[in-house]
Amino acid sequence: MSRNSFEGDVLASLRPRPGEREHIHAIAAVIIKRIRESGLADGMVVGSVARDTWISGDRDLDVFMLFSPSVSRDDLEEKGVRLARKIVEDIGAIPVEKYAEHPYINTIIDGLDVDLVPCYAVEEASSIQSAVDRTPFHTRYVKGRIAGLEDDVLLLKQFAKTGGVYGSDLMTEGLAGYLCEILVLYAGGFRPLIESVSQWKPGMVIDIEGHQKKAFDDPLVVIDPVDPKRNVAASLSLRRFEEFIELCRAYNNGPSAAFFGGPKVGRITQPGLQAVLDERGTSMYALVFPTPHQIPDIIVPQLRRTIGGISDLLCRNDFILNRAAGYMGDKECILIFEVIVDTLPPLKCHKGPPVHHPVNAGKFVSKYLDSAVFAGPYITESGTYAVEIRRKWLTVEALLSSEDIFTARMGKYIERSMRKNYTLFCGAECWNEEFSQFLYEFIHPSSPLMRLHDAI
Amino acid sequence: MSRNSFEGDVLASLRPRPGEREHIHAIAAVIIKRIRESGLADGMVVGSVARDTWISGDRDLDVFMLFSPSVSRDDLEEKGVRLARKIVEDIGAIPVEKYAEHPYINTIIDGLDVDLVPCYAVEEASSIQSAVDRTPFHTRYVKGRIAGLEDDVLLLKQFAKTGGVYGSDLMTEGLAGYLCEILVLYAGGFRPLIESVSQWKPGMVIDIEGHQKKAFDDPLVVIDPVDPKRNVAASLSLRRFEEFIELCRAYNNGPSAAFFGGPKVGRITQPGLQAVLDERGTSMYALVFPTPHQIPDIIVPQLRRTIGGISDLLCRNDFILNRAAGYMGDKECILIFEVIVDTLPPLKCHKGPPVHHPVNAGKFVSKYLDSAVFAGPYITESGTYAVEIRRKWLTVEALLSSEDIFTARMGKYIERSMRKNYTLFCGAECWNEEFSQFLYEFIHPSSPLMRLHDAI
Repeated sequence: MSRNSFEGDVLASLRPRPGEREHIHAIAAVIIKRIRESGLADGMVVGSVARDTWISGDRDLDVFMLFSPSVSRDDLEEKGVRLARKIVEDIGAIPVEKYAEHPYINTIIDGLDVDLVPCYAVEEASSIQSAVDRTPFHTRYVKGRIAGLEDDVLLLKQFAKTGGVYGSDLMTEGLAGYLCEILVLYAGGFRPLIESVSQWKPGMVIDIEGHQKKAFDDPLVVIDPVDPKRNVAASLSLRRFEEFIELCRAYNNGPSAAFFGGPKVGRITQPGLQAVLDERGTSMYALVFPTPHQIPDIIVPQLRRTIGGISDLLCRNDFILNRAAGYMGDKECILIFEVIVDTLPPLKCHKGPPVHHPVNAGKFVSKYLDSAVFAGPYITESGTYAVEIRRKWLTVEALLSSEDIFTARMGKYIERSMRKNYTLFCGAECWNEEFSQFLYEFIHPSSPLMRLHDAI
Repeated sequence: MSRNSFEGDVLASLRPRPGEREHIHAIAAVIIKRIRESGLADGMVVGSVARDTWISGDRDLDVFMLFSPSVSRDDLEEKGVRLARKIVEDIGAIPVEKYAEHPYINTIIDGLDVDLVPCYAVEEASSIQSAVDRTPFHTRYVKGRIAGLEDDVLLLKQFAKTGGVYGSDLMTEGLAGYLCEILVLYAGGFRPLIESVSQWKPGMVIDIEGHQKKAFDDPLVVIDPVDPKRNVAASLSLRRFEEFIELCRAYNNGPSAAFFGGPKVGRITQPGLQAVLDERGTSMYALVFPTPHQIPDIIVPQLRRTIGGISDLLCRNDFILNRAAGYMGDKECILIFEVIVDTLPPLKCHKGPPVHHPVNAGKFVSKYLDSAVFAGPYITESGTYAVEIRRKWLTVEALLSSEDIFTARMGKYIERSMRKNYTLFCGAECWNEEFSQFLYEFIHPSSPLMRLHDAI
């Protein structure tokens, strides 16, 4: 495999150091031994540690506890969590119960972030009862094929992290670690993958096992080698997909170590925000409310739905929006709207039905016949009625402070939290320390290439 | 024919008084006698006077001079105008040469507005050489069939005038007198026509001779009984058509003498305009320039084209237009734009191509890579590039005062006149006496029914 000269140096910094690897495997061995000794389940290291595709400095260790499928779901959850808790306590660490699709135990051991996850040891990936049951199959599939390509996976992961397209959580909507491994297997290495992606467009389908059993209309479709009905890239958004294409094309045209420099974090200060808004001349509005007590996988899509709903509400009221975004903080969520036109005159033109439709036309005319309007009803060039009436909301501030905000489409938990209490901020008042990174990224939107531009 | 009770009174006021009719026919007889005595052409009264479908007080007399088709076009124009001029002078009136499709003579005789129009006496309407040659056929067609329905034509014409839908000139885009006659013949009277029109919608086709030879997509198609390839209603706009439907439906539902009360003219004063604009909260801009020396049939469509072009220009620059209109005065034309949002912040979002299109994406990124932008290029949720740049025009006033106004689509003669000299007015400054009626109608747009509403 030919490499660019600097990739050797990059890899030297990415590969786990020997002591690091020994340390993590030693801890894994202790946990697995104790799982097996319990006689209740088998133990298995999964994830990038198992596949030797983790980046030096990563502190995540995932250990799965494989129970017999004969155990009931309730028993699995109860016995699994109890066993995991006991093991963690016996080691002298503090167990924390967490919940994704099912409950599991998280803990910190010697600086490592360790998850102990109960699952079923099913015979085939097609007979899984829950998503976690699939994970051991992923580990076995990759482990059996990745030998010799581990460095390529490391390069791809660091490349994606630096470009801001790594992470399959719903906020990031980027590439999962497993997806990176499958892509490297597909192309046969980092460089051929980069060359391939440079030519991609939405609708790309990859099926290395040639066993696809379902159609998807995601921008990228990568059929799971262990499950013909699953798209490994389902959580990759169109935006991240196109950003990945941009990155690969740029690297292909001018490879440099800057593409592996790690993600840069920017923050904006309150005076900085004030200065940028003054320059842009736009108005910024923020809605801040307590974060509902739900996992991000529930809240993040509801934030998106609410942002879309309030954007539509502004639009329906003729305000001109530039962009909107949201962020889920530990304590508070923020929804932010940058508005081009936030103040409107009283006059609003309201369009009516065509005159020749007697029922609708009659209703429209009789509604406005004796009511206080600026003008009309009159008949437009296109043969429809129109009337010039007084608009309800002259400012974004008045609209977003009113009960009418709840006419917007909203996520259930978001609406519930906002109905209890929300605060509307304007301009640089939108700033606070917790949101300073989010606000920086909102006000400085940039493609991956543009972010790297100065460094390249 | 059954009539509503008040229609008798209405008709009594519409029918020409005996002295009026004798006076106009006497003058016509003198002119026709002199045409015939010349030995060059035959004379014929055309239009509503010939058909006895003119309304008392109308002062228009049209006399056609029918030449043999063996005369050349040049000869016809030269001899026709010379003969007309001589006849007018012999009567002691003052001839004025005018020009529509061809030259003709206009004069005032005893308070009547008289046109003497040379044309060819062709055998069949299908062999006409110019539109005026068709007129004698119209007169003969209607004269032979209208007997007993003259009152119905009078009612329809006055009804259409009062409703603001009468007149086939390009500014009005309403019903021609001949069209009113054909519609009455079609329906067999005023009341059945009103009932019929109440049910119409765009796409209505009427062909009383059943000889249509061409398809039209005008809102109303009325095949000319003397020319199977002509739509008598071609100049009727969709707006006037729908207004006519509204009027007929309203009359059908609640007939009253108010529908024949004659058109009402409103004017606005400058303080009145100021007060209305203050209430509406909108901004008004007027472009005023010398009226080009061309006939309205040339200028009016060019005014419309220019209004559309400047409206699009405002829209392209993100200003929000409510309505626009134009008026051709004797000395000056005015184009008026009522704007909802006339001031914008410096920031403008400029959309780019999809990232996965390498050529276009490359051009877009390299264009903005090192230029001064507010933010970006960045990649949107829809996978396309966007960049936030400084907009060129922050106010409507600046844009319409600049050379960029000529990037708008414009009529040729309008552009020529504006390039020499135009003035931009804002707010109540747009007012002047000559435009006071036009401005009144612009600021108080109303359907015919709404205009009549108080009187009904």
